[in-house]
Amino acid sequence: MNKKTSNGPIKLGIIAGGQLGKMLALAASNWGIETIVMDDDKDCPAAQSCSVHIFGSRLSYEDIISFADNVDLIVCEIEHVNVEALQFLKKSGVPIFPDPDILTCIQDKGLQKDFYKKENIPTSAYHKFENSDSLKQAIDKGLITYPFVQKLCKGGYDGNGVSVINSVKDLDKLFTEPSIVEDKVDILKEISVIVARNKNEEVKCFPVTEMEISEHSNLMEKLICPANLPEKILIQAEEIAIKLIEKFNMVGLLAVEMFVDKDQNLWLNEIAPRPHNSGHHTMDSVITSQYEQLLRAVLNYPLGSVSINKPSVMLNILGSEGFTGIARYEGLEECMGIDGVKVHLYGKKETRPNRKMGHLTILGNDLADALKKADQIKGKLRVVS
Amino acid sequence: MNKKTSNGPIKLGIIAGGQLGKMLALAASNWGIETIVMDDDKDCPAAQSCSVHIFGSRLSYEDIISFADNVDLIVCEIEHVNVEALQFLKKSGVPIFPDPDILTCIQDKGLQKDFYKKENIPTSAYHKFENSDSLKQAIDKGLITYPFVQKLCKGGYDGNGVSVINSVKDLDKLFTEPSIVEDKVDILKEISVIVARNKNEEVKCFPVTEMEISEHSNLMEKLICPANLPEKILIQAEEIAIKLIEKFNMVGLLAVEMFVDKDQNLWLNEIAPRPHNSGHHTMDSVITSQYEQLLRAVLNYPLGSVSINKPSVMLNILGSEGFTGIARYEGLEECMGIDGVKVHLYGKKETRPNRKMGHLTILGNDLADALKKADQIKGKLRVVS
Repeated sequence: MNKKTSNGPIKLGIIAGGQLGKMLALAASNWGIETIVMDDDKDCPAAQSCSVHIFGSRLSYEDIISFADNVDLIVCEIEHVNVEALQFLKKSGVPIFPDPDILTCIQDKGLQKDFYKKENIPTSAYHKFENSDSLKQAIDKGLITYPFVQKLCKGGYDGNGVSVINSVKDLDKLFTEPSIVEDKVDILKEISVIVARNKNEEVKCFPVTEMEISEHSNLMEKLICPANLPEKILIQAEEIAIKLIEKFNMVGLLAVEMFVDKDQNLWLNEIAPRPHNSGHHTMDSVITSQYEQLLRAVLNYPLGSVSINKPSVMLNILGSEGFTGIARYEGLEECMGIDGVKVHLYGKKETRPNRKMGHLTILGNDLADALKKADQIKGKLRVVS
Repeated sequence: MNKKTSNGPIKLGIIAGGQLGKMLALAASNWGIETIVMDDDKDCPAAQSCSVHIFGSRLSYEDIISFADNVDLIVCEIEHVNVEALQFLKKSGVPIFPDPDILTCIQDKGLQKDFYKKENIPTSAYHKFENSDSLKQAIDKGLITYPFVQKLCKGGYDGNGVSVINSVKDLDKLFTEPSIVEDKVDILKEISVIVARNKNEEVKCFPVTEMEISEHSNLMEKLICPANLPEKILIQAEEIAIKLIEKFNMVGLLAVEMFVDKDQNLWLNEIAPRPHNSGHHTMDSVITSQYEQLLRAVLNYPLGSVSINKPSVMLNILGSEGFTGIARYEGLEECMGIDGVKVHLYGKKETRPNRKMGHLTILGNDLADALKKADQIKGKLRVVS
């Protein structure tokens, strides 16, 4: 903000306009920053909340290049973007977050795993396969044994692109595209650490958060913050997150998802170089939200306090099964009547089963209080059509 | 939100687009509500943050009537609006907050005072004058004695329209327009209570807040929450605020400014039927912000929790003396480096002396901590051109 040489407000370019882009735009507006969002959906969540909505595809080289004419810096709210365009813009001096080199690595789960191995980050053993035939051969030869997890190298998101293969009966679930195969971790808990870093190399972690994933939809259902785990594991988890963002020499926000196994070992699962679903609660329960922290990082301000205001449980609001069409929210009034419930609706006009339509942060005086209220709410709020 | 019969998101009309309108629009966006703001300034703070900005004057009958075609309900962020237009719209069934009858009373300080007297609300003794000549005659006759406070019946805002007359030497400061003259209260402290009420007649008060007013600019400089006053006075202050909103039969938000005199009596000073500068801290230090509370009230949801997350001090960011032009912020980095400082910039392109450009909320572990940090910051942040 005070870094800018030209007159007038900063013009923040955001690729793309999903809920993360929208919430980033709201945080930026609160600092008087102009927000220019590129998305090819006229009804994208950010459309109603940004200063300017430019139609364009995050996968199109040309669209990204022309988008850059209108902005002072670019932040990506999703990693699946045209990296070649960002590499070109980087060379011509446009500040881009995350750096395109990091996107290249993160877009490919094989490269990601190689990076972890090189940097000595604990992650489950893996093999790469070009197609399902070579994978089947490895199974036949006994090189791969059940159970295992197959992940598409490219294009996975929100639990898509991941197959858990427990036995020969699951082989019809194999992806045919290039993939990695990992040992299946005997998971006790899934956790997330979101870490921020600015150009001055200041680093701060948000408190470790527990994630409960739905077996049914493979989507995150519940976040619990702070995580109920021994101090030793919390410290280890933060150390891994900090090591990662430093090894990437990254400026911005990195969400680091890890498994805690039944022997209390940590295993890196996935990372995302952007605001993340596992940081939704920070808007209400931490002094600095993940969006404000990202802005502080990319504008090279000191990072904000990550102290917890209140323990919290976050519930995703997902489109109810059996409904597709213009969204209506049932039970909202009841939810709002419970003390300390904060509602966030993304403004998606249409619902469909399991679509992420919003989230609730439930603040409690202690974690037990928040969990109790979350149980009260669960199933009360339905997104129908 | 679930109350609406037509398809798609609620369309919230906001008159006008100052910082209060902007922050209301941000809160509404977070609930997936479309925000349509009417303001005659293309660079108004809300312009960059609302869904649709409609050019039009809040004082124009025609502009307000045609604005209403585009919205489901109307909220005013300022009381100086064309009430005749709102009365017409009310008759045709448009939900309007605050009710135009309340605006009529509040727009005129004489009517306001008559209302307080009728309802037995403690307020300083007053007389009404049609012009300065009749006031001077009353002084000559000894009916009015020094010191006294003259307030314009209509059009005052932000300390404008108020003259403190301590002696005959100040008589050149008299307003010529219709005014009221009040006894000057021997002020110990100024406080504010913001109270909300929904259609179900649920009522909640935000914690009582101390206001420090600049003698120089007559603008509020500092808010302290919670107020450091005996419990008995805090309860009385809340009772007065609740009595007022109930007597007005008002749905929405009412900011009630009071004096505490040196004998610890309370005197009603002014009221505003809308979000208010004295509620800025609620965005960061209370579970529910004043904007969310207003939305809950007008959409008839249960009112939100008014529990304090952290004690806070709020500082207005005012345009520095001697600078007029495109705004630049000096010292922002230093402010952001202090733990628990939350920055809000309204996005006003041009600064001028004492223009309200933004505010800081400073969160502390206790009030002493927040006050200490506020002292550290004061004078460090300057708005120059």
